[in-house]
Amino acid sequence: MSDLTPKRAKDTEVVMTQLILPPDANNLNAAFGGKVMEWIDICGAVAAQRHCRQVVVTASMDDLHFHAPIKVGWVALLHSRVLAAFRTSMEVGVTVHAENPLTGERTLTTSALLTFVAIDKDGKRVPVPPLLMESDTEKEAFREAEARRTQRLARQKEN
Amino acid sequence: MSDLTPKRAKDTEVVMTQLILPPDANNLNAAFGGKVMEWIDICGAVAAQRHCRQVVVTASMDDLHFHAPIKVGWVALLHSRVLAAFRTSMEVGVTVHAENPLTGERTLTTSALLTFVAIDKDGKRVPVPPLLMESDTEKEAFREAEARRTQRLARQKEN
Amino acid sequence: MSDLTPKRAKDTEVVMTQLILPPDANNLNAAFGGKVMEWIDICGAVAAQRHCRQVVVTASMDDLHFHAPIKVGWVALLHSRVLAAFRTSMEVGVTVHAENPLTGERTLTTSALLTFVAIDKDGKRVPVPPLLMESDTEKEAFREAEARRTQRLARQKEN
Amino acid sequence: MSDLTPKRAKDTEVVMTQLILPPDANNLNAAFGGKVMEWIDICGAVAAQRHCRQVVVTASMDDLHFHAPIKVGWVALLHSRVLAAFRTSMEVGVTVHAENPLTGERTLTTSALLTFVAIDKDGKRVPVPPLLMESDTEKEAFREAEARRTQRLARQKEN
Amino acid sequence: MSDLTPKRAKDTEVVMTQLILPPDANNLNAAFGGKVMEWIDICGAVAAQRHCRQVVVTASMDDLHFHAPIKVGWVALLHSRVLAAFRTSMEVGVTVHAENPLTGERTLTTSALLTFVAIDKDGKRVPVPPLLMESDTEKEAFREAEARRTQRLARQKEN
Amino acid sequence: MSDLTPKRAKDTEVVMTQLILPPDANNLNAAFGGKVMEWIDICGAVAAQRHCRQVVVTASMDDLHFHAPIKVGWVALLHSRVLAAFRTSMEVGVTVHAENPLTGERTLTTSALLTFVAIDKDGKRVPVPPLLMESDTEKEAFREAEARRTQRLARQKEN
Ligand SMILES: CC(C)(COP(=O)(O)OP(=O)(O)OC[C@H]1O[C@@H](n2cnc3c(N)ncnc32)[C@H](O)[C@@H]1OP(=O)(O)O)[C@@H](O)C(=O)NCCC(=O)NCCS
Ligand SMILES: CC(C)(COP(=O)(O)OP(=O)(O)OC[C@H]1O[C@@H](n2cnc3c(N)ncnc32)[C@H](O)[C@@H]1OP(=O)(O)O)[C@@H](O)C(=O)NCCC(=O)NCCS
Ligand SMILES: CC(C)(COP(=O)(O)OP(=O)(O)OC[C@H]1O[C@@H](n2cnc3c(N)ncnc32)[C@H](O)[C@@H]1OP(=O)(O)O)[C@@H](O)C(=O)NCCC(=O)NCCS
Ligand SMILES: CC(C)(COP(=O)(O)OP(=O)(O)OC[C@H]1O[C@@H](n2cnc3c(N)ncnc32)[C@H](O)[C@@H]1OP(=O)(O)O)[C@@H](O)C(=O)NCCC(=O)NCCS
Repeated sequence: MSDLTPKRAKDTEVVMTQLILPPDANNLNAAFGGKVMEWIDICGAVAAQRHCRQVVVTASMDDLHFHAPIKVGWVALLHSRVLAAFRTSMEVGVTVHAENPLTGERTLTTSALLTFVAIDKDGKRVPVPPLLMESDTEKEAFREAEARRTQRLARQKEN
Repeated sequence: MSDLTPKRAKDTEVVMTQLILPPDANNLNAAFGGKVMEWIDICGAVAAQRHCRQVVVTASMDDLHFHAPIKVGWVALLHSRVLAAFRTSMEVGVTVHAENPLTGERTLTTSALLTFVAIDKDGKRVPVPPLLMESDTEKEAFREAEARRTQRLARQKEN
Repeated sequence: MSDLTPKRAKDTEVVMTQLILPPDANNLNAAFGGKVMEWIDICGAVAAQRHCRQVVVTASMDDLHFHAPIKVGWVALLHSRVLAAFRTSMEVGVTVHAENPLTGERTLTTSALLTFVAIDKDGKRVPVPPLLMESDTEKEAFREAEARRTQRLARQKEN
Repeated sequence: MSDLTPKRAKDTEVVMTQLILPPDANNLNAAFGGKVMEWIDICGAVAAQRHCRQVVVTASMDDLHFHAPIKVGWVALLHSRVLAAFRTSMEVGVTVHAENPLTGERTLTTSALLTFVAIDKDGKRVPVPPLLMESDTEKEAFREAEARRTQRLARQKEN
Repeated sequence: MSDLTPKRAKDTEVVMTQLILPPDANNLNAAFGGKVMEWIDICGAVAAQRHCRQVVVTASMDDLHFHAPIKVGWVALLHSRVLAAFRTSMEVGVTVHAENPLTGERTLTTSALLTFVAIDKDGKRVPVPPLLMESDTEKEAFREAEARRTQRLARQKEN
Repeated sequence: MSDLTPKRAKDTEVVMTQLILPPDANNLNAAFGGKVMEWIDICGAVAAQRHCRQVVVTASMDDLHFHAPIKVGWVALLHSRVLAAFRTSMEVGVTVHAENPLTGERTLTTSALLTFVAIDKDGKRVPVPPLLMESDTEKEAFREAEARRTQRLARQKEN
């Protein structure tokens, strides 16, 4: 059985560093969008697994905006963290910064919200621990995530 | 200079077939979300390039919902098509079906809306041809895309 | 047990779209032959599996001629279809066109004939359904495939 | 300018060793056909480049027969060698053996004949050195290659 | 010209998170050694580039010991940091921990010392900034790195 | 049970040929260190498996010095061979040469010593056959390997 003791968001934080190499690039010599989406998905999944200590699958990714390209030879810096835990699902926030290795300058390239669902060996959904909310800010963040979840499930039904 | 004669949506349709192989899978023996996002991005980009005959970059992807897993050995079928063309950007719709090779059964796994922007050799944005709308249905589809675009740019500004 | 009801060639058709990315290229900045062969093999295998609804393995590929290079940033379009079904093997035809994304121009790059064999879970060969031949053209195509098969098996024995 | 002094076939020999890893495999846990074709292409190209000291592109691959699967964890052993040099093209022979790492047993999996064409920086075809033929066996081998070449170009024209 | 103001080791720290996926594994279902070495090299290179703000190449890697396997589905956590800066070369330390996603347990898998050399656009070596040493511990660490460097260059000459 | 008849070092020799393709390169257009380490690990593992006819895992790699870059389009030539067999571990030597395809010139890029340990299906270590030493040179080589092993285990304990 899984341990359902409440956990702190801080303990789920993941830092991922990817050097943009030629195979990650399109023919403009910059990371192509799909590759960055792949890293966002993995970075988010590791944070979700740190929260629930179960295997997780991606249920959704909210709208993603790419503000700036990441060139070959640059570094992509990803940060993720669980924002809210529901019954079997968790919302995770991921940000991506581009770092120019020759100047050290960092630019926010994109940020995304993903939902992951915890799954046991037989592929059945399993409950996840609650998120420990200590400050008022954290409680507020959770309420926002809950509102997004309601909208997201409504939008999904529409389609 | 680019040719700005209006073009038909039908001529931008792309069909992509991917056999799920072990490197595409997570340790549940199913395609992991990030890999499918990568294919969605490429399938959408090819449709956008067919419309504008320019190199394109991904500007955004709307919320994505994964309804069902795609197992190793199964086939992912992607279809994409330009839904609306604005000044330098285009909205593209992509669907993904999972096909069980042993039964032929197909299930909708996910659908997504992406925006691509046309770029010239120097990385500057360039105008794209208008989309030829023949039927009332197509005109209605365009109006819906325009509404989504207004909301999308508003949501982007918020973040 | 597998279903041996005769099936139509049209229902096995596969369309595959591949954007040529830097990892697919040699140092002339064009897709290298081996990568295109890999895609031909997968595209053909999916058509064969659509016919027999079994796992298949590649038994042979007939002579392959590359008429034109496919540059990085271009699109490779593959089409495959079952041409003939024998006892446990099927002949599949595959064509590859190169599409220049900036002009839309398409050139036939290569065409190939492959044979796949249907295999069950224990690796044993299993019978495949006959191919439904409706027109005289289809019957003629089948007779040609049969002739090639006889020659192919003879050539293989020689080596 | 390229050096057109005749060269010996022996000096073009290439040995390639590939450990079959999970990303090379289909879902029968064996190397899939397309992957082996990719290695055959590379192994042949290196032999052709050793002969002509130019960049080469694949012009054709003759019929390929896969006699036995190569399992994950096994070793694929490829050998290639230039069999004949014409004006700008060369015929190369490649064999693939599967080695079971636990017993050391080796089985011939496939053999193939490929043609490569020498290309300069501008993509133009360039002459290749003649092949030095010392023994009667080598002269005989060359005559056979010439006969195959005549047939191959005839077959190509037909299609 | 490059900026040669002394820099703090802390500012070069890199954290890299890799989910072990099937393509990273050998047929024991664990990350194979060569893959982990690849990540160590990249993680170290990013730290070195953060110090010198130049492109770097790997000059050496000291003895590497793998203490424990990292299974598919587990997470590899890499940390790197510049330990010493010489004229054009830098010594970087990298550690790799394996994290079991179901228990959160972390084990040290390996640690390595690498040397990187700073290179300009023409491939010529360029000076790197000195490392700012604030505490006695840091000065001691630097003296150890210097001793290792003397031994390393001696060992290299021997071979 | 495994066969423990003494074996000859010559029979373990592995030759590996890798064409440097764009996905293997850093943004200086040369193979990046981590990729070459990956090939060294595989080349060494195949030699070790030829000796013991068991699955092996990498235990250590001694200091590695990269003397010269390998450019995209060049060929990496790896040679490996078992130098000494202990109880369950073997020391393997690997060399890497870079071959310029346009001139045929070969340069030693690096050499490395690795230790592999033989493992059975349950992940338990198993004894390996002794190495047959015929000449005085071979006996001397073995004594050197034994000395390195003692030092290596001592160094590992220190860390
Ligand atoms: C997309 C990009 C070219 C937009 O450039 P910009 O200078 O911000 O352009 P503007 O705000 O003037 O908008 C230009 C067009 O893009 C559209 N656009 C911009 N941001 C958008 C977003 N997040 N979502 C959807 N459309 C967007 C605008 O609506 C406008 O469309 P129109 O010309 O049809 O009216 C730029 O942000 C960029 O280069 N992003 C990175 C793209 C990339 O590398 N993707 C892969 C990332 S790994
Ligand atoms: C995600 C998945 C497990 C949901 O299963 P389901 O039977 O539809 O479950 P339900 O509708 O009962 O919802 C279960 C939970 O998932 C959440 N959820 C379901 N669909 C969601 C979506 N599209 N977006 C966000 N959350 C979603 C629900 O809110 C619910 O959360 P809760 O338990 O915390 O209250 C299922 O759709 C699935 O397996 N999808 C494929 C996942 C995958 O393979 N991803 C990679 C694809 S390539
Ligand atoms: C191969 C290629 C260079 C031939 O160019 P071409 O203009 O058709 O040349 P020609 O017909 O004059 O023939 C040139 C030589 O190639 C040989 N050749 C051409 N097509 C061939 C074929 N299909 N099979 C074998 N040899 C062939 C000819 O025999 C001739 O040889 P020779 O100079 O030794 O007498 C050209 O077709 C090409 O670029 N193909 C694509 C190569 C490629 O990119 N491969 C990877 C594809 S993904
Ligand atoms: C590393 C390299 C640049 C050194 O060039 P070189 O002309 O031999 O340089 P030198 O002997 O004058 O030494 C230059 C610096 O490198 C250091 N260095 C050289 N070889 C080294 C080695 N094997 N280990 C550690 N440091 C080394 C020297 O200590 C010196 O450092 P300093 O400037 O801080 O005093 C060169 O050998 C090279 O290009 N190697 C290949 C790098 C590469 O491509 N790596 C990936 C391989 S696939």
